[in-house]
Amino acid sequence: MQELPNPSLYQRNLLIDDKFKVKEAEKLLSWFKDEVDFQMNIFLDKKIEEAREISEEATILVDEVKRFVFAGGKRVRPAFLYSGYIAAGGKAHAAVTLASLCVEFLHTFALIHDDIIDRSDTRRGKPTSHKAFENIHKSKKYLGDREHFGLSSAILAGDLAFTFAEEILTSSPFPQERLRRARYFFDQMKFQVITGEYLDVLGSYKKRLTEEEVLNILEYKTAKYTVERPLQIGAMLAGAEVAILESFTAYGIPLGQAFQLQDDILGIFGDAEKIGKPVGADIREGKKTVLIAKTYEWASKKEEQLLDRVVGNWAATDKDLSRVKEIIYSVGAYGYAIKLSHRLIDQAKTAIDKDKYVGEGKEYLLVAADYLLNRIS
Amino acid sequence: MQELPNPSLYQRNLLIDDKFKVKEAEKLLSWFKDEVDFQMNIFLDKKIEEAREISEEATILVDEVKRFVFAGGKRVRPAFLYSGYIAAGGKAHAAVTLASLCVEFLHTFALIHDDIIDRSDTRRGKPTSHKAFENIHKSKKYLGDREHFGLSSAILAGDLAFTFAEEILTSSPFPQERLRRARYFFDQMKFQVITGEYLDVLGSYKKRLTEEEVLNILEYKTAKYTVERPLQIGAMLAGAEVAILESFTAYGIPLGQAFQLQDDILGIFGDAEKIGKPVGADIREGKKTVLIAKTYEWASKKEEQLLDRVVGNWAATDKDLSRVKEIIYSVGAYGYAIKLSHRLIDQAKTAIDKDKYVGEGKEYLLVAADYLLNRIS
Repeated sequence: MQELPNPSLYQRNLLIDDKFKVKEAEKLLSWFKDEVDFQMNIFLDKKIEEAREISEEATILVDEVKRFVFAGGKRVRPAFLYSGYIAAGGKAHAAVTLASLCVEFLHTFALIHDDIIDRSDTRRGKPTSHKAFENIHKSKKYLGDREHFGLSSAILAGDLAFTFAEEILTSSPFPQERLRRARYFFDQMKFQVITGEYLDVLGSYKKRLTEEEVLNILEYKTAKYTVERPLQIGAMLAGAEVAILESFTAYGIPLGQAFQLQDDILGIFGDAEKIGKPVGADIREGKKTVLIAKTYEWASKKEEQLLDRVVGNWAATDKDLSRVKEIIYSVGAYGYAIKLSHRLIDQAKTAIDKDKYVGEGKEYLLVAADYLLNRIS
Repeated sequence: MQELPNPSLYQRNLLIDDKFKVKEAEKLLSWFKDEVDFQMNIFLDKKIEEAREISEEATILVDEVKRFVFAGGKRVRPAFLYSGYIAAGGKAHAAVTLASLCVEFLHTFALIHDDIIDRSDTRRGKPTSHKAFENIHKSKKYLGDREHFGLSSAILAGDLAFTFAEEILTSSPFPQERLRRARYFFDQMKFQVITGEYLDVLGSYKKRLTEEEVLNILEYKTAKYTVERPLQIGAMLAGAEVAILESFTAYGIPLGQAFQLQDDILGIFGDAEKIGKPVGADIREGKKTVLIAKTYEWASKKEEQLLDRVVGNWAATDKDLSRVKEIIYSVGAYGYAIKLSHRLIDQAKTAIDKDKYVGEGKEYLLVAADYLLNRIS
């Protein structure tokens, strides 16, 4: 059997670049992550007390949002919001840290609902929200359909996280006009992630998507959502001119797409422990990726038959998965995805180089990009 | 068999009161409803065009929100927001009409998710959102699990309506400081309706709730949500002092509870066509109401056994349902609920009488109360 590429090697090749200050990034963003977590903890404890005023049992719903939030995550979206704020000349570090929780709570909401839609039982090695509520149903000996209780409660836990995202903005100590402009981009972000997720759902009920369709979903569901919108919200909170937004788009969209490509490659070629889900889950689930779209495009008739049998088939064997991986590699889709992600990263870097940012703006954006691309889970 | 009370008689008794100007209410609020619908239509058509920029298929999700919104509803919550605005001295009719859509879109969100949780197939005689998406799955010949497609898409349609509620406020032409204060109450409204719904979910997985527990759920899920919060949001948009809020609470909470009591009575004794769901559905579903809590409290051992067998049992026969209705009546729970709702309405009226409102404020509040209590679906 042909030797398959080693994804850790891939990572190293892709990421070691003397412009990217890996150590500094990790230090800076791990400090920022701690700050975000600290604020999030205070906020959620306050909400638990508010729930207790309604009823002791109502606290369970907020408890679950808290458990989910602290089960993992690198706070990538707050980091971009923060970087956008600094790059646009903002100085109020404490205020923007608090405001940055809005994109993290939005992400919490999106993940909880996504997990229901994808029928995932675990995320980052821990139970998803609907599974956690099934466990509560069991331990509290509630009556009735356990699975439906898990589903119902998780829908509401997601809704609650959505509400928290808004409350954070309402109580952010920024001039109202800046908040109004930030909200415009936040509203866009929400609209696009929800419609993007819907396209993703539609995609999973279709046999195949073209590369163009996949890239369109990525643009809305990942690139705008993870990078561009958080940067823009940060810039608006700093009172920036609209001109800076174009450069954020030129940087954010390719970076976000590169990130998703990397995630898709790791989802198939990465190791289970690092990516936090079983090897081959993406293939068995039939996840629509550029990698799979290109593989179909370039596969022979015989290979296509094999793909049809294995992709999206939960009963596929490990041997089947290995053969699909070999095809992805041999038809050139793997190399194509690597090259495309390199090109997108170069594009993002060029966009930063071209523009003049205030103070340490440029460095923050480079560092945030590196942080994103080092992200595993 | 004992003759059961006629709910239309009950309605007439409860509502004919010379202080309540029924005709005027209907005229005024039907005009307002048309205005709200007109604005909602413009807003949703704009969102459909925005979705089209993402992809033609993304429009389907917005189309469904639009279908759902126009499938029915009397725009009761916008009417209270409007009344609160007028009662607090507001003059910008067009601006507040637009802003009032926020509570209607929030309600759309809540209903779409509730229907999933309650596994309802129809609302107001038309398909619920998850059912509508199942029909789309069928007509477009999508692959895979039809029911899960319906569920997934409806979760997202609800999420989208939630986003629209926020966007409306962001774009409302009010001074930013008023909007910030209005948002505070809007955030409270969201937090409380979601935790209230969670308590309702919990309740449905338990055998029984006490009257106190039921009233607590009603306070959060219905009274604050339907009446108090919309009034408060309206008042804040008018730039009102905080003092007016107390009187809104004194009026809004009992009125909202009376409304829910009436809804529960009609849910058991009303006729199917008017209430828009099958007769006895509330009993078969095991809906936790004051009526049922009181019936359990006052039932004999033998009656209790019958209740245990029928309440919450989807397989209960029509004869079983008739016997349960008789018990509700004979133990005095029916009379108790009627009296309680009368007392609550008196309490609400007294609260308005005591306070001095600007201009036509008082009349608007009386009229809105009547509109609410005449609400059937």
